[in-house]
Amino acid sequence: MRVAVVRETRPQEKRVALVPELVGRLTGAGLDVVVETGAGLTAFHTDDAYRDAGADVRDDVLEGSDVILSVQPLDPVRVANLKPGAITLSFIPTASELEFVRQARDAGVTACAMELVPRISRAQSMDALTSQALVAGYRAVLVAAERLPRFFPLSMTAAGTVPPAQALVLGAGVAGLQAIATARRLGARVDAYDVRAASAEEIRSLGARFVELDLPSLEGAGGYAREMTEERAQQQRDLLAPYVTAADVVITTAAVPGRSAPLLVERDAVEAMKPGSVVVDLAAESGGNVEGSRPGEELTVGQTLLWGGANVPSQLPVHASRLYAANLVNLILLMTSEGEITVDLDDEIIDGVCVTHDGTVRHEPTRASLEEEG
Amino acid sequence: MRVAVVRETRPQEKRVALVPELVGRLTGAGLDVVVETGAGLTAFHTDDAYRDAGADVRDDVLEGSDVILSVQPLDPVRVANLKPGAITLSFIPTASELEFVRQARDAGVTACAMELVPRISRAQSMDALTSQALVAGYRAVLVAAERLPRFFPLSMTAAGTVPPAQALVLGAGVAGLQAIATARRLGARVDAYDVRAASAEEIRSLGARFVELDLPSLEGAGGYAREMTEERAQQQRDLLAPYVTAADVVITTAAVPGRSAPLLVERDAVEAMKPGSVVVDLAAESGGNVEGSRPGEELTVGQTLLWGGANVPSQLPVHASRLYAANLVNLILLMTSEGEITVDLDDEIIDGVCVTHDGTVRHEPTRASLEEEG
Repeated sequence: MRVAVVRETRPQEKRVALVPELVGRLTGAGLDVVVETGAGLTAFHTDDAYRDAGADVRDDVLEGSDVILSVQPLDPVRVANLKPGAITLSFIPTASELEFVRQARDAGVTACAMELVPRISRAQSMDALTSQALVAGYRAVLVAAERLPRFFPLSMTAAGTVPPAQALVLGAGVAGLQAIATARRLGARVDAYDVRAASAEEIRSLGARFVELDLPSLEGAGGYAREMTEERAQQQRDLLAPYVTAADVVITTAAVPGRSAPLLVERDAVEAMKPGSVVVDLAAESGGNVEGSRPGEELTVGQTLLWGGANVPSQLPVHASRLYAANLVNLILLMTSEGEITVDLDDEIIDGVCVTHDGTVRHEPTRASLEEEG
Repeated sequence: MRVAVVRETRPQEKRVALVPELVGRLTGAGLDVVVETGAGLTAFHTDDAYRDAGADVRDDVLEGSDVILSVQPLDPVRVANLKPGAITLSFIPTASELEFVRQARDAGVTACAMELVPRISRAQSMDALTSQALVAGYRAVLVAAERLPRFFPLSMTAAGTVPPAQALVLGAGVAGLQAIATARRLGARVDAYDVRAASAEEIRSLGARFVELDLPSLEGAGGYAREMTEERAQQQRDLLAPYVTAADVVITTAAVPGRSAPLLVERDAVEAMKPGSVVVDLAAESGGNVEGSRPGEELTVGQTLLWGGANVPSQLPVHASRLYAANLVNLILLMTSEGEITVDLDDEIIDGVCVTHDGTVRHEPTRASLEEEG
């Protein structure tokens, strides 16, 4: 059977769904791999590198392919031309991709959404949200450090000692923990906060201080935080404000998949920061943790730089692609036996990721949205 | 006596020669401090911060002042209006500032060049080349890491292990050693080279590998490397090329004060680097260690990003200013007794830094250049 890798067409998407290094894992399982011409260039992989790894490189890869790999969902018009029974693996932000889902359903395509990999230990190696969050958390710190007019580390010099930067990380999921670890590597003092009290131990184990607010804890299902009332959210913002104001760098990472990001930092708190401070909002695309942040833009608020993330993993395309490709390959190999790929809905992982299959929409919220649209 | 701090007027200069934190060290020694309105703004210090620290802030600070502090040399026209016997403390790249030197001489001004602080242990706290090189070396790594499409550190994830970036640092003076330390902090593997064999131990003590080339060592005076023949320089480039090509990041820091920087890396080697690699040339302003680098520009050579530094310390203005100001304050206090500042040419440090004094040019190479001009 044949696995196709397409060239991404959306603006700012620099990742590629398969890297040359991992082609051999698919061919070794008896699968053919075809890569669209130029698919890897934005992630610094040449066509020759794919050929050397055992893939075929050509202009048209969709016709006749059994599995199609991409980072962003395919254009709906391309999905409509896939053969019935074909499988697509990609991210599918279903709320904004209803047309893609409709076309996949109507074409009899099995569309798998990498966001929906269940958070169980057997699926860890396929968890693309986690792998991409690792990249985003790392990059958030580099963005901040490169823009800060001061040192991150304590510097003891003959001309005196310069204190370390004070960083504040809000949200201690995968991206937040990676941000904490990277800021600590660079020598900053780090405070961190998460609504889940259970995160305190993880935060402390990385050498950061856990910010304890006088609020009841919110522990949600599946490792994500639950939403909270507006009154409690305002209390939280008020209690966080002095920590924001005291920090040289604030990195916010609080996102709830499929929902608007919670507002954690108000404009007043940003304006009260020291001149030259830097705020990085990794949640800018889903509404923002910081008032006024805009995805893909660097704004000045008071005398603070406010950087809004837009597809941040794509800004480290070599390794974001490498990790994402490994997630895909692991999922494909789970579906492969003796060179044949099958969709086994009795497997909890496959059941979880399949948004469409055999002419139906299997993801409940998406089916409801499509029915509403009519 | 009165010490004046001017607002820098040259483009891209964001540092300020005194920071509020250090005003008290001068006033505590019986000196008055006046700061030009807005002098600290580009380094994120407000006029009020200087006032709160005990300085006077006003529009015209030169008239009647005894000591004038700046980062870049004053405009020659401003020097001409200083009172006879006034002292200026700043960097003075004498080769390109002959007009400044001429005006200082004719006005009877004592112009002190911070580049000329002797490298003796008593003068370490006044060594501005060292303090600013620390800043440049740190920033070089952040510039590279922020632009590299891969992780610096080894990353062990559920989707596989990503190897650390390979960095190569050329020149292991203050900036080079700081670059090594910062790249190691961020988790990169680091190779480093210097023409001085004595640097091997320092390089290894920071966790980097010393690149040994099959060339005789060059040990110069005053801690700087000596120049070498063109034939030997070409051999060195040829022997370094495979290390350049194998690196994800190259940072070059080899500068000989007052001379052109040695060419260490040819274009061919840069073009042969892996796509997405980053080269940072801290010596771009003095001719460049890397063929084709240009100060203040980011160029693409092959598929490598080539970043040429231009006044790099100024890009971290808060702490570059803090360290530079401490250097100046320590030098002023050396010259101060009971609230009086005197120029004691019997002191080796004062003797070293004074380019002009009492109507004469004391710095031999500069006097020779002026006489050539006639």
